[in-house]
Amino acid sequence: MSRKVFGQIGTLKSEKVEEYKKLHANAWPGVLKTISDCNLQNYSIFLQGNQVFSYFEYVGEDYEGDMKKMEADKVTQEWWKHTKPCFEKYSISPESEFYHDMEQIFYYE
Amino acid sequence: MSRKVFGQIGTLKSEKVEEYKKLHANAWPGVLKTISDCNLQNYSIFLQGNQVFSYFEYVGEDYEGDMKKMEADKVTQEWWKHTKPCFEKYSISPESEFYHDMEQIFYYE
Repeated sequence: MSRKVFGQIGTLKSEKVEEYKKLHANAWPGVLKTISDCNLQNYSIFLQGNQVFSYFEYVGEDYEGDMKKMEADKVTQEWWKHTKPCFEKYSISPESEFYHDMEQIFYYE
Repeated sequence: MSRKVFGQIGTLKSEKVEEYKKLHANAWPGVLKTISDCNLQNYSIFLQGNQVFSYFEYVGEDYEGDMKKMEADKVTQEWWKHTKPCFEKYSISPESEFYHDMEQIFYYE
């Protein structure tokens, strides 16, 4: 089984930090099921001020295919209608509308 | 076995980003051994611009005790003489000289 770790950074709108926390304190079962179905596991989100960082591990064989599967999931689409507006767009880069992949510079098992 | 995940954020001095990357591309064996001896595992560091994020898991029974053990390790002290000056002090909070613990707001195994 292959296993790849991902780290992603994002910036929340200051007035949306509490809403983002509340959403994730009670994440929808259908969203969690889709995370598992798309071969993601050990998923954490951390907060500092209005900066968020997500960490997860991908254990499947086709990351891009699984991400397309996630994007096609109706419950996840509905979830993103709540979560994506919490983000400050383009705060990380001109392409960043949501979470942005970071470069991994160290790994020690 | 208990297992707790940690996420920490830090800000590098722009002129020190490459040095910090190089250090971690060839981390010292004695530093890695101490990480294991102190019950930390699955340790990753991610970079975006001059922002760094570290993720690790603690699998021991006495986190504070193990952190004191790490601080007492001579090789790790020497390593920190190289890595800590790469950080922009107090960029996260008035107490942040290095990495700063973030609040975990989501976990899904």
